[in-house]
Amino acid sequence: MSDQAHRSRYLHDIPLGEALERFNRALLESGHSGPVPVETVPLDQACGRVTAEPIWARLSSPHYHAAAMDGYALRASSTRGASDRNAITLPLGKEAFYVDTGMALPEGTDCVIPIELVERVELPAGDAIRVLAPAAPWSHIRPMGEDIVATELVVASGQILRPVDLGAIAASGYQQIPVRRKPRVAIIPTGSELVPIGATPKPGQILEFNSIMLAAQIEEFGAEPDVLAIIPDELPEIEAALRQAARDHDLVLINAGSSAGSKDYTAAAVQACGELLVHGVAVRPGHPVVLGLVRRESGASDKPDRIPVIGVPGYPVSAALTAEIFIAPLVKRWLGNVPDPPELLQAELIRKVHSSAGDREYLRVTVGKVGQRWIAAPLSRGAGVITSLVRADGIVEIPEGVQGVQANENVTVRLYRSRPALERTLLALGSHDLTLDLMAQFLARKGIRLTSANLGSLGGLIALRRGEAHVAGSHLLDPTSGEYNLPYLSQYLPEVPVVVVTLVGREQGLIVPSGNPAGLKTLADLARPDLRFINRQRGSGTRILLDYHLEQLGIQPDQIEGYSREEYTHLTVAAAVASGAADAGLGIRAAATSLQLDFIPLYHERYDLIIPCEYYRSEMIVELIALLHDSAFREAVTALPGYDIETMGKIIYESDNCAG
Amino acid sequence: MSDQAHRSRYLHDIPLGEALERFNRALLESGHSGPVPVETVPLDQACGRVTAEPIWARLSSPHYHAAAMDGYALRASSTRGASDRNAITLPLGKEAFYVDTGMALPEGTDCVIPIELVERVELPAGDAIRVLAPAAPWSHIRPMGEDIVATELVVASGQILRPVDLGAIAASGYQQIPVRRKPRVAIIPTGSELVPIGATPKPGQILEFNSIMLAAQIEEFGAEPDVLAIIPDELPEIEAALRQAARDHDLVLINAGSSAGSKDYTAAAVQACGELLVHGVAVRPGHPVVLGLVRRESGASDKPDRIPVIGVPGYPVSAALTAEIFIAPLVKRWLGNVPDPPELLQAELIRKVHSSAGDREYLRVTVGKVGQRWIAAPLSRGAGVITSLVRADGIVEIPEGVQGVQANENVTVRLYRSRPALERTLLALGSHDLTLDLMAQFLARKGIRLTSANLGSLGGLIALRRGEAHVAGSHLLDPTSGEYNLPYLSQYLPEVPVVVVTLVGREQGLIVPSGNPAGLKTLADLARPDLRFINRQRGSGTRILLDYHLEQLGIQPDQIEGYSREEYTHLTVAAAVASGAADAGLGIRAAATSLQLDFIPLYHERYDLIIPCEYYRSEMIVELIALLHDSAFREAVTALPGYDIETMGKIIYESDNCAG
Repeated sequence: MSDQAHRSRYLHDIPLGEALERFNRALLESGHSGPVPVETVPLDQACGRVTAEPIWARLSSPHYHAAAMDGYALRASSTRGASDRNAITLPLGKEAFYVDTGMALPEGTDCVIPIELVERVELPAGDAIRVLAPAAPWSHIRPMGEDIVATELVVASGQILRPVDLGAIAASGYQQIPVRRKPRVAIIPTGSELVPIGATPKPGQILEFNSIMLAAQIEEFGAEPDVLAIIPDELPEIEAALRQAARDHDLVLINAGSSAGSKDYTAAAVQACGELLVHGVAVRPGHPVVLGLVRRESGASDKPDRIPVIGVPGYPVSAALTAEIFIAPLVKRWLGNVPDPPELLQAELIRKVHSSAGDREYLRVTVGKVGQRWIAAPLSRGAGVITSLVRADGIVEIPEGVQGVQANENVTVRLYRSRPALERTLLALGSHDLTLDLMAQFLARKGIRLTSANLGSLGGLIALRRGEAHVAGSHLLDPTSGEYNLPYLSQYLPEVPVVVVTLVGREQGLIVPSGNPAGLKTLADLARPDLRFINRQRGSGTRILLDYHLEQLGIQPDQIEGYSREEYTHLTVAAAVASGAADAGLGIRAAATSLQLDFIPLYHERYDLIIPCEYYRSEMIVELIALLHDSAFREAVTALPGYDIETMGKIIYESDNCAG
Repeated sequence: MSDQAHRSRYLHDIPLGEALERFNRALLESGHSGPVPVETVPLDQACGRVTAEPIWARLSSPHYHAAAMDGYALRASSTRGASDRNAITLPLGKEAFYVDTGMALPEGTDCVIPIELVERVELPAGDAIRVLAPAAPWSHIRPMGEDIVATELVVASGQILRPVDLGAIAASGYQQIPVRRKPRVAIIPTGSELVPIGATPKPGQILEFNSIMLAAQIEEFGAEPDVLAIIPDELPEIEAALRQAARDHDLVLINAGSSAGSKDYTAAAVQACGELLVHGVAVRPGHPVVLGLVRRESGASDKPDRIPVIGVPGYPVSAALTAEIFIAPLVKRWLGNVPDPPELLQAELIRKVHSSAGDREYLRVTVGKVGQRWIAAPLSRGAGVITSLVRADGIVEIPEGVQGVQANENVTVRLYRSRPALERTLLALGSHDLTLDLMAQFLARKGIRLTSANLGSLGGLIALRRGEAHVAGSHLLDPTSGEYNLPYLSQYLPEVPVVVVTLVGREQGLIVPSGNPAGLKTLADLARPDLRFINRQRGSGTRILLDYHLEQLGIQPDQIEGYSREEYTHLTVAAAVASGAADAGLGIRAAATSLQLDFIPLYHERYDLIIPCEYYRSEMIVELIALLHDSAFREAVTALPGYDIETMGKIIYESDNCAG
């Protein structure tokens, strides 16, 4: 057992600007600030590479005067005065010459008459053509150098080569060209708890997947990743791996052990093998970053004798952002390529976000355009939640010195997706249901993205009122009337005309461990003292359903152990039960079935889509509604356990003043 | 010698929509409309591939309740009532357990207290910790499934995999995943005139470089190109190559021979091996397209028995556009990926463009933002001018039924470059000079693109007046005063306050063949009857210089043979001399030196930059001006023959009302 006796020290996070400055100054001093050496590659392997020099044309293109049409090459002056009435006859092979497109002009000719404009005749002296109109000099000719003149600049230095560039470079006389060698980046995964992907990890073991992500990122930046073997948390082994990697790479990444815990040896290893420049940067997520230089013990004498090393944090979101912040600019500089400025978008953040004034925070958001407004919804901020990056449409940087962002404040989003793609995004906020994921799959085939953020049913109605969503999923039971959703409209959406259309009917019930070991039968069993419950968050339809029925049964919340512990989705409730952290939760059958849990059905409920009339006739919503009547979609929903499609697509309510 | 007897027939161009419909219907009937088969690839090779199925999580992540901090795991209820005054002591190894971040919670514990919040004590019975505040259940825990719950959707079907997707998929229990096999595309270059790149082509021979460009495009679309050997223009050989390629590819491209000339066998070969669907599409450039199906003679029985073939036109711009129009959508459909909608931009076209009403024209344009207006300048429209694609920032489609676009009309540009990159673009219209290319190189390192279009000096002033450029290069001699540029300002830019700053001084003179075989000495020699001259276009500074001195000498234009033949740049004038098409031209020394020609210096002139005050203090112009005082730039210009930098950077004129 480790303990704090081995603990190295706390991190002293420094501002990002200062960290980068220290690192860059050290790189400059150790000869790493300029581009990496040049290598020559054949053109057919050069796409995506970066030119190391300006490419000046060696040949002109065309490199000779070429016929631009199939026809007859001749000297224009020999057709002077030709007309319908005064045909001029030119003998073939002497004064006129047949040429195909692309052929060189025969000596002494200076134009081409297209084949369809002359008559061919057979004369006793041989074949000839009859010309009925004068030709202009240099007509139907591609003059030498029309495209490229030898010595001209074809592609500048520092450019990422595209297919058309390769064509132009080849046309100008090259077969191979000088490009920057790809910087070689070693990735050393460290951690005694790591197991390779594909293994079945035991509790406490972690799948080593950061290296796959980092390697792919590094390749996208234009460098060559080299994933090395996993090293356990032992200082001597990490040092040895670091020294070894420094021999034949331009940059070494150690992932992770970059924090200051009892088993975090990265900083110590860097210190031992070279120079520790930075340990801790004031960014969230991703603050436990190590920056340093390592002595190169052997290797070619023309190489710098110290090479940079970055300790990359272990949480996957931190690792990915560290690559964007520290590694991408370094690789670009080594390649001599100035990257395009990022795509930025101004959007309204729909929720207040608190952030520490000392840190620069990188907030992942999903983005959509609702009416004329761009909306950004914050995603999970956990450094371990890699799905937040998968779902992210962009990043909002909350600078140092700022305590956070207010709801509806304007923020600048650095986009991960193109603006046109975001304009084809349906924002579905509110209650989450598995059929929405299915719907997203079907809509993707039509080029429409459906992104959903789980705010609970009430949250969805509020988002609609604020104009922050195109559609909200809702299953709100009204305790008084026993009716779903409609009674809530007058309260939450008094001034928003909407259409309410049913998506599905579904079963709600108790999610319990396989075999139902506690023998639960009814909701009232939740009050049993031996039972640990897992609840849903306030404002969710399921929570309202629970509270309604508890009240009917006369059960007080404090009679239920775990009532105050909240999860945000059916699946995370099921996961809590599956892990043994809880004995029961209330949720939908599909969630129980997914994790091979048992399910005790209690209620049948209606899950509706609430759509403001403003968007009801828009192309994206029309496609969404069409899905509800699409047999393939209906079959796919029916295949999910606990769902019925009896009323799918039924319009439950439509405001009087609804368009169309 | 070939002639029209062998000519197959004229093309009957059909509208693009009809061509695509015929092709798609035939693909559907022959079983090619759906996606290609699935293959399984390891995750570390999956970046950029397209998912063939939805990826559902096999494992939760974390797959156990994990400590989120280094600290002590314990049961929260055991700390009830703890305070500064009432420390609760918990024995280590029994009621409290040291955990590193990421470790599994020991059985029976439900929270972690961070190491810095407890005191460690040694007691006679063993080590223990003292807790001074109650802990909340589930605090400092990453609960199982916080990121991903097993069975959840991780990545949808039909998605292009990004690095973060790979991380999430690996975290959810995969080592390999099903993706679409890359469609295999054969490229058969045909043409007896073709020689491989790297060769030194003779007149009439053409470097075969289309295949390099097409292969790189096809790879970008997500397919696998296979460039086959060059086939001469012989029908049986082309047929044999086509049949062979059809055996083990999903698509065959024949490049070129797709027109209707005497040596164009592609349509005939397709007809002989299968079915000719389309021969000629009403698009410019690129109309001689062949679309067809070829019988597959052998191969696995599960494959379709006919495969598509496309005859790709030979001109490089036509070939590249054919790939975009016909091949990219087919590959995307085969991959099951719906591409993002293109980035579009509304811009003003600065020049009138005529186009045939029968065709859809793809006009290449360069784009910049001048003040608040987006400006699009048409590039060369020649199908053979591949540099027009290299320089293009986007494409304007002029639809069928439209005769063209008026100057200053709004057009929609499909962008090849990102909008932020275009916002960092300096548009330099006017006279072209080699030092502008050099300047572009230097500015690129600052992340600024300088794009120049050669309109001649007068054209540049007019562009400034219309607000279509940030800067204009000009070397306009005023015949009356002998002064450069300034006298033209009051005439052409009466209401535009500007700064005039000198870029370079340069020599103008006669460009003649090496050794000066005609023994030219002065401008007056151009009137010699044995001499063929090559002129510059009207409005260019060099043309005005010529006309001024001819007038001084009393020489009439019609005394000079070739006076009416115009080229648009110094280099193309030099190229005409180098090719023997002309005996002399007027131009700058650098152009003559480039092509190893002789140069007879006649005049020294000043080449200025004219910059509207409106942009003079903008960041991009400030960087440009800084260059004029940058020693590396000045050295680079000095190294060019015929240039002097004596007055480089000197402000010649500044309007009274100029800002700053």
